[in-house]
Amino acid sequence: MDHIYLDHAATTRPDTASVEAMLPYLNGEYQNPSAIYQPAVKIRAKISSIRADIAGFLNTSPSSIFFTSGGTESDNWAVRGAAHIMRSKGRHIISTSIEHPAVLNTLKSLESEGYEVTYLPVDKNGIVSVSDIEAAIKDDTILISVMHANNEIGTIEPVEQIGRIANGRGILFHVDAVQTFGHIPIDVEKLNVDFLSASSHKIYGPKGCGILYIKNPSSFVKILYGGSQENGMRPGTENVPAIMGFGEAVNIARTRINDDLAHDMKLRKLFMDKLTEEVPGVKFNGSKESVLPGILSVTFEGVTAETLLIILDSNGICASAGSACAAGAIEPSHVLMSCGMDKESASRTVRFSTGRENTEEDIIFTVKVIGDYFRGRSKS
Amino acid sequence: MDHIYLDHAATTRPDTASVEAMLPYLNGEYQNPSAIYQPAVKIRAKISSIRADIAGFLNTSPSSIFFTSGGTESDNWAVRGAAHIMRSKGRHIISTSIEHPAVLNTLKSLESEGYEVTYLPVDKNGIVSVSDIEAAIKDDTILISVMHANNEIGTIEPVEQIGRIANGRGILFHVDAVQTFGHIPIDVEKLNVDFLSASSHKIYGPKGCGILYIKNPSSFVKILYGGSQENGMRPGTENVPAIMGFGEAVNIARTRINDDLAHDMKLRKLFMDKLTEEVPGVKFNGSKESVLPGILSVTFEGVTAETLLIILDSNGICASAGSACAAGAIEPSHVLMSCGMDKESASRTVRFSTGRENTEEDIIFTVKVIGDYFRGRSKS
Repeated sequence: MDHIYLDHAATTRPDTASVEAMLPYLNGEYQNPSAIYQPAVKIRAKISSIRADIAGFLNTSPSSIFFTSGGTESDNWAVRGAAHIMRSKGRHIISTSIEHPAVLNTLKSLESEGYEVTYLPVDKNGIVSVSDIEAAIKDDTILISVMHANNEIGTIEPVEQIGRIANGRGILFHVDAVQTFGHIPIDVEKLNVDFLSASSHKIYGPKGCGILYIKNPSSFVKILYGGSQENGMRPGTENVPAIMGFGEAVNIARTRINDDLAHDMKLRKLFMDKLTEEVPGVKFNGSKESVLPGILSVTFEGVTAETLLIILDSNGICASAGSACAAGAIEPSHVLMSCGMDKESASRTVRFSTGRENTEEDIIFTVKVIGDYFRGRSKS
Repeated sequence: MDHIYLDHAATTRPDTASVEAMLPYLNGEYQNPSAIYQPAVKIRAKISSIRADIAGFLNTSPSSIFFTSGGTESDNWAVRGAAHIMRSKGRHIISTSIEHPAVLNTLKSLESEGYEVTYLPVDKNGIVSVSDIEAAIKDDTILISVMHANNEIGTIEPVEQIGRIANGRGILFHVDAVQTFGHIPIDVEKLNVDFLSASSHKIYGPKGCGILYIKNPSSFVKILYGGSQENGMRPGTENVPAIMGFGEAVNIARTRINDDLAHDMKLRKLFMDKLTEEVPGVKFNGSKESVLPGILSVTFEGVTAETLLIILDSNGICASAGSACAAGAIEPSHVLMSCGMDKESASRTVRFSTGRENTEEDIIFTVKVIGDYFRGRSKS
């Protein structure tokens, strides 16, 4: 049975072209890019060309793009590194209560090392207030870290305005763009960011690869130590095949980004209309305007997300709870709670995230499965 | 033109079976292993089974095996983590002068944070003295980190004896086994290690994946923060395809390890005999007995490694300098210098590292190319 995959915010199916781009580097072109012989030199050149592609996509120079093992490492690097280089200036960091655990838990570890973190609340749509950010700034504020779009509700944060404020006050600004990179256009100059994290496997590339954009690498520090790869900033033999697959995924995203957005928008509208029509009492979470169209957070009435996800799964439909979940254990989402939702409602919330492979039929079938469950229940 | 690859210590060509093992996970089985639906559950189970395979290969339990992005991350994690958890007991660390930069540079960063590191010398064969280790131990010694075999000269260190000493003194012991894992049998119980680092791409698996063995994970700490993957110890979406390829590579290594050793031993003897026969004044570095047979370090007379490597390269032969090299710049090797070699001799040293794909013909041709160069020079 083929599956209907509605969990694109968790990971995506690598594009065939992305996998094809990896294969030569898993086979004949396997050499270590740091070596001096010709096959290695060619690989090194190809990595440079992908770095340049990604830099162009973000409107910056290749020297600001560093390959990492993924979004989590990029977030750790940006936040910990920024805290480190600014520690003589101050120890206060501003973030939000709805960040990804890669940022939140790095911040918590910094708190245990003597840093002070202000976790700003968000409104019911998940948007942090720009004036709250301004008001939270203190003399010793060194870093602001705000995600571009939330991974559970899709809400897009006002990062451009926050960037202007941070920049004007000499405060470093990190944006976790793992959900938006490749999905909505990003210009790091316009955003006024010092650091931006992105991941390959969220944009139809392979797992195990990400980037950190660093505005001023010469004044930054590394968090992993070793060889001189990545211009001395990130050691370890490059994950060449993954970089190649990521590069191809970025080049595909570049050409498709507007079509992808339109596709997700169309599916979102259909999804919302159909759910409203067929399922009593559904409630849609997150912002209506400032939102990644591919992420739809829905609170259902009288049924837990866990039950609904099992029913969906048994019909071959992949979706997630509104919260991070591992090995079947669903805990109340810190994001939904931050939006003012109570625990019980949060436990009835499902995240559907659409992508390129989804069709209108996928949405119609999914809503039918949910509708059938509710219809069956109301009969019995 | 097909290449003769004599740089297996830098990286290896992924085994076809390893690549085959990855492919399903780059295609249909792409789901996030943390999700709760069936396709994800299956992937999670497969990761567990590979973890168990690797644990068995090292004679330990799966709960002690953690997947990382590679050897460098594993080394950083072990050394920094051990320093952190023991910091109330002491700040003194013992290591050697010939460790890999992933260990050496992590130690240097710890020095800047108030730790004291003793870098023990090695003898002319690159072997650290066990009695030197014992003598270096102080009341506040918290960690000993010694590599299993050196990546430039192949010398195998007396890690079992060092492990006994560390264990007896309540000192944590880390072994960087990136060069030996999958190449010589390793039993972590016998070695008395607390931490052991290994890498996938050195054993015919894909790049971008490694493991850290942690004897007592419940009393250890993480160095990257985020989600609850890897039993809460190493966050970030698992690099599923690479883990699958690594698992297959380990299972192949398990069955081939003795044949591989015999093969490398045979090629090593041929290589040394032929070089001695055809090239005047060659000198072989490292231990004669305690050595990984696949790594052969050779100092040539009257020609720099750089020149020789270019000649080899132009004949389709891939080898490296005795030292770490990047983008053509060759610096004197800290390993060779530690063995008492002068700078000038170090600059005339080439590392050949053989592997499964090499044949006797490869060795004969390589020595012929070098011999021709010397013969041509002596004529002119």
